[in-house]
Amino acid sequence: LAPAHMAFAADVDPLNPGATTSELSHQAPIHWVSVEQVAKSFEGQPPMTIGFDVDDTVLFSSPCFYYGQNKYSPGKFDYLKNIDFWTDINANCGPYSIPKEVAAKLIKMHTDRGDTIFFITGRTASEGEKLTETIQTAFGLEKINPVVFTAGSESKTAFMKEHAIKVYYGDADGDMRQALEIGARPIRVMRASNSTYKPMPKNGSFGEEVIIDSDY
Amino acid sequence: LAPAHMAFAADVDPLNPGATTSELSHQAPIHWVSVEQVAKSFEGQPPMTIGFDVDDTVLFSSPCFYYGQNKYSPGKFDYLKNIDFWTDINANCGPYSIPKEVAAKLIKMHTDRGDTIFFITGRTASEGEKLTETIQTAFGLEKINPVVFTAGSESKTAFMKEHAIKVYYGDADGDMRQALEIGARPIRVMRASNSTYKPMPKNGSFGEEVIIDSDY
Amino acid sequence: LAPAHMAFAADVDPLNPGATTSELSHQAPIHWVSVEQVAKSFEGQPPMTIGFDVDDTVLFSSPCFYYGQNKYSPGKFDYLKNIDFWTDINANCGPYSIPKEVAAKLIKMHTDRGDTIFFITGRTASEGEKLTETIQTAFGLEKINPVVFTAGSESKTAFMKEHAIKVYYGDADGDMRQALEIGARPIRVMRASNSTYKPMPKNGSFGEEVIIDSDY
Amino acid sequence: LAPAHMAFAADVDPLNPGATTSELSHQAPIHWVSVEQVAKSFEGQPPMTIGFDVDDTVLFSSPCFYYGQNKYSPGKFDYLKNIDFWTDINANCGPYSIPKEVAAKLIKMHTDRGDTIFFITGRTASEGEKLTETIQTAFGLEKINPVVFTAGSESKTAFMKEHAIKVYYGDADGDMRQALEIGARPIRVMRASNSTYKPMPKNGSFGEEVIIDSDY
Ligand SMILES: [Mg+2]
Ligand SMILES: [Mg+2]
Ligand SMILES: [Mg+2]
Ligand SMILES: [Mg+2]
Repeated sequence: LAPAHMAFAADVDPLNPGATTSELSHQAPIHWVSVEQVAKSFEGQPPMTIGFDVDDTVLFSSPCFYYGQNKYSPGKFDYLKNIDFWTDINANCGPYSIPKEVAAKLIKMHTDRGDTIFFITGRTASEGEKLTETIQTAFGLEKINPVVFTAGSESKTAFMKEHAIKVYYGDADGDMRQALEIGARPIRVMRASNSTYKPMPKNGSFGEEVIIDSDY
Repeated sequence: LAPAHMAFAADVDPLNPGATTSELSHQAPIHWVSVEQVAKSFEGQPPMTIGFDVDDTVLFSSPCFYYGQNKYSPGKFDYLKNIDFWTDINANCGPYSIPKEVAAKLIKMHTDRGDTIFFITGRTASEGEKLTETIQTAFGLEKINPVVFTAGSESKTAFMKEHAIKVYYGDADGDMRQALEIGARPIRVMRASNSTYKPMPKNGSFGEEVIIDSDY
Repeated sequence: LAPAHMAFAADVDPLNPGATTSELSHQAPIHWVSVEQVAKSFEGQPPMTIGFDVDDTVLFSSPCFYYGQNKYSPGKFDYLKNIDFWTDINANCGPYSIPKEVAAKLIKMHTDRGDTIFFITGRTASEGEKLTETIQTAFGLEKINPVVFTAGSESKTAFMKEHAIKVYYGDADGDMRQALEIGARPIRVMRASNSTYKPMPKNGSFGEEVIIDSDY
Repeated sequence: LAPAHMAFAADVDPLNPGATTSELSHQAPIHWVSVEQVAKSFEGQPPMTIGFDVDDTVLFSSPCFYYGQNKYSPGKFDYLKNIDFWTDINANCGPYSIPKEVAAKLIKMHTDRGDTIFFITGRTASEGEKLTETIQTAFGLEKINPVVFTAGSESKTAFMKEHAIKVYYGDADGDMRQALEIGARPIRVMRASNSTYKPMPKNGSFGEEVIIDSDY
């Protein structure tokens, strides 16, 4: 670092918003938890049934949705109602879906406890889905319940209730809402900033626990 | 929010690391800049030639590398030396590569200034690459210089020198180092946390400017 | 902002530690709460008895301790065992003790609820204390229970138990520990970074709630 | 940590603002520097003359202003125009003024370099000031130039120009502006959140360097 000749604004300027000391130390009123703290909260409890949302919770699958929109309805959202899209990505997009590190930790923790795990997705079901296989391989699971395709919040809630889900991990507000509706404990996994699923949800907006470092 | 019955540790415990007030307000000594501040620093300067690294700088292309490793050398890094891998992803992985918002802003800014832009990648060249087309389409560019494939830092530096690159944007330490070697101004774009390219670089480790919100 | 000529390190250097993208988005696993959230958690509950620690919780009184150490035992901690010191600051240092904004909010909230409030300090009692008056004036209280001087954790816990304290606000680990010992709900108020009381405690180290923006 | 029974909102609620992943990783576009980086920037430069603002830059003296307002003009700002106030605190408030750690580091660095240091305050001069002595003692200085009392920005700028100040450290926007007016390099020291001097300035609002961890 040699002596620096810097460039300054002549005066306060919107170009340089700066920040007050209080703004810099401000924290959002969020109940942050680590995976270890979550694990500890289950100590002494018998095996139970828990659920995971899939997209942006266990898999970073935005590449599939980005690909799908461009292919099936460029610039529009019609692709989400096109069964060809779902058949395509459910069968073919596993190789481009990046498993999340936080999911690996959570899945291992629940597997070690002997819990029953369901992966419950809002995706539309389609013939020849390989999503179950993708998750099983990505997380090295000996066995796995077939992914539950619900295509809508009603059937998702029904499934969760029927199977007495006790804890539900998800990135979307809908995930939290569904967990609360059936009396399950909602735990937020953060959607990554580079997800194509916008707008971004406000993590912690239900007063729920949010897992640290869970955007990847 | 009903009255809460909470669970506390009996005493200080590694499970609850907590943080001191000073740790909470601590900032890394990084020269953060916004795209607007970078733009302002060019005011009054004639058009110039600038460069962008590609992977993790303009495209989130980890899906391609994740796919490629699993296909060509599961669990190993041999795939990076396999021309079949490069031919494959250079030609076929554009649809799964997510353009970064920060890159869209930077490219527009330099295009508006009339600057000459080169996309310079460390990827190995291959027949039938469509990376140039991917970038052109993703960022809506009327025209584009063909992506420069350098497959190594020496030829990258040579190209940058030859074309008198004045500013170079990249996510890796190598990008910063190469810019400095030829006397260009290095500007860091942050690699996303969910990139499969690990270990993560320390943004700001050369004293360079780091663009805020540039992980997506 | 004119064109900038900056100075960079030739390479990665401890002078420029930088930070990875993951480090930058990392959060301590702390249960942050706002005063509003704390208030909400009391909704529907009848008036109760609650307690506040004094130094660094309701008053920034480091000026008194800084003054006292220099006067009564420069460079040493003997002053804390000197009754002259306590008599002096308990009587005279109110004018230099800055009330904390977070305490004003919390005290108002509990007063509005009709709760009984005790200010319980670890300071040593002394003739002619004006600390009670200082707190009453600083927070504009119509009436106030005399500050409880306990000079040690045992008598503090005894008092808290006897008066069935339900919630206890404090900045020190000892405050949290005492609350837990009597089954009260501990809530952390952050000690300011410029407090002379070192080392700084790890806020959240008991898994307790920590109030945002509570360092001032 | 025993199993937790938590309380959640039934739905998204302003009580739980939460935060998006992007908001959580957002940084203000500020040029942060460590004291070590500042020191490095002076390497190879001959001894020079530098200046420090006093209140909130080298001393946390809010206790004096808090005391003074309550004594000389409760609830008003008239005290700032009352020479009795200035005479009082300039002579008597040193014992309650807490030296800042960042100032100790900066002063040592410049002393070690052989630089000439001026402490330049906007306070009004008064008979019998002991501020110079307070600073000398607090930072253990062998010798010290008498504090320069300027009582206004014009005379401050004049003094700085006359003495060819090269670098000026301060917490207020005015400090930065004055440095820029005479062509000196402005460096921001953060005003502590618990300072009574409000509103808080936006650190970095001139594009200037802001020292990390400088609120204490
Ligand atoms: Mg999801
Ligand atoms: Mg790259
Ligand atoms: Mg205390
Ligand atoms: Mg000042």
